[in-house]
Amino acid sequence: MSGPRRRSRLSRGSLGNIEEKMARIAFIGGTGPEGLGLAMRFGKVEGNDIFIGSRSQERAEAAAEKVKGKVPQARVRGLLNAEAVEKAEFVFLTVPWEAHKETLESLAEVIGNKILVDVAVPMVWEEGGPRIVQVEEGSAAQQARAVASRAKIVSGFHHLDGHDLQKIDRPMQGDVIVCGDHKPAKKKVLELVEEIEYVRALDGGPLANSYLTEAWTYILVQLNRTYKAHTGIRIVGI
Amino acid sequence: MSGPRRRSRLSRGSLGNIEEKMARIAFIGGTGPEGLGLAMRFGKVEGNDIFIGSRSQERAEAAAEKVKGKVPQARVRGLLNAEAVEKAEFVFLTVPWEAHKETLESLAEVIGNKILVDVAVPMVWEEGGPRIVQVEEGSAAQQARAVASRAKIVSGFHHLDGHDLQKIDRPMQGDVIVCGDHKPAKKKVLELVEEIEYVRALDGGPLANSYLTEAWTYILVQLNRTYKAHTGIRIVGI
Repeated sequence: MSGPRRRSRLSRGSLGNIEEKMARIAFIGGTGPEGLGLAMRFGKVEGNDIFIGSRSQERAEAAAEKVKGKVPQARVRGLLNAEAVEKAEFVFLTVPWEAHKETLESLAEVIGNKILVDVAVPMVWEEGGPRIVQVEEGSAAQQARAVASRAKIVSGFHHLDGHDLQKIDRPMQGDVIVCGDHKPAKKKVLELVEEIEYVRALDGGPLANSYLTEAWTYILVQLNRTYKAHTGIRIVGI
Repeated sequence: MSGPRRRSRLSRGSLGNIEEKMARIAFIGGTGPEGLGLAMRFGKVEGNDIFIGSRSQERAEAAAEKVKGKVPQARVRGLLNAEAVEKAEFVFLTVPWEAHKETLESLAEVIGNKILVDVAVPMVWEEGGPRIVQVEEGSAAQQARAVASRAKIVSGFHHLDGHDLQKIDRPMQGDVIVCGDHKPAKKKVLELVEEIEYVRALDGGPLANSYLTEAWTYILVQLNRTYKAHTGIRIVGI
């Protein structure tokens, strides 16, 4: 779990060009805490290229500057959403629920058959606190599949706290449970998860399970409020 | 987390009779792995009275013998379900989903306004593996409230592995997330949870959240199959 992460990734084999092993990762909605935090963690890994997408070039560039402020060595650029998607192999969707469907509709064509990592949680904030939203398709990830129908949809990263992610000098705690039906894409995402030091990737089964991992976030948010904490999940016994 | 558990419980105060501090706990469906395991753990605590309920006196007594085999000092008896309920302050419901509603219907009157701890998970086993069942009332716990309408319903203990519970010489890992609307009853159950050494009790909010904690068991069961493990949950960050 320690030492240079890049080396461990390379040591997994392949005689190919080293450059091909570096991940090109876009964060759509990368100006929020979760997208920013993940961009910082992945930006720490040597060789990764990070593209922060926004509907506003200015906000995208400001977010990229924030990442560089925390991770000076990061290779990170702020771009319009569609440009960020175009450059990436992994497209992370880290938008608030209210923007989920609309964002996907506007980007589905440029996403094409790329790997789309949906981090969205169908939850809205109201005066009294958070409220779960019932999704017609069953879950955020299944809505993503319905809209971006050619993409390889994988869901995960819901349980890593955005503010903790941005404290990049502290190790993250917790597991990332990944769901998906496209096995090679899920495998790539499981490998990507473990680039974040001390975070463990677990295979949560098919995409149809994603409503459970998404909804679990709702309990974490409630625990955060009850215990004034930033919570995550660790699966014990594995 | 160490030392005699009973002492720490007594030290919580009250000038009343010591006997009143001891918990009388019934396990309906206490012949299965979860009920047996919990009976063993609570049987380890000095002064607790454990009543294992079954539809068959013979099976109840056999289960009580199993508990004594592992925990010789346990004060445990095997009884018919209704008799076990009558004697208890806390009634744990640890039946398979198929028996949930029927068992409640047959015992609702004797349960009365006692504390009912629902451990049931709306899940059935089929040839291909486990399947989640949609519950009309929203969750197992809400079904319990609909049927045993005078009882103080609290849900919890879904994520402690039944087989691990029975390995009584090993500490349990993981958290128990407790949901309920009756605050004094929930508080009592939260205290009861921590009689199991190393297990932490967390308040998961209202009973309406129980469908999330129940359903999470489904992911744990899938992880158990994928990783050949006995899993539980630990919330990090608290």
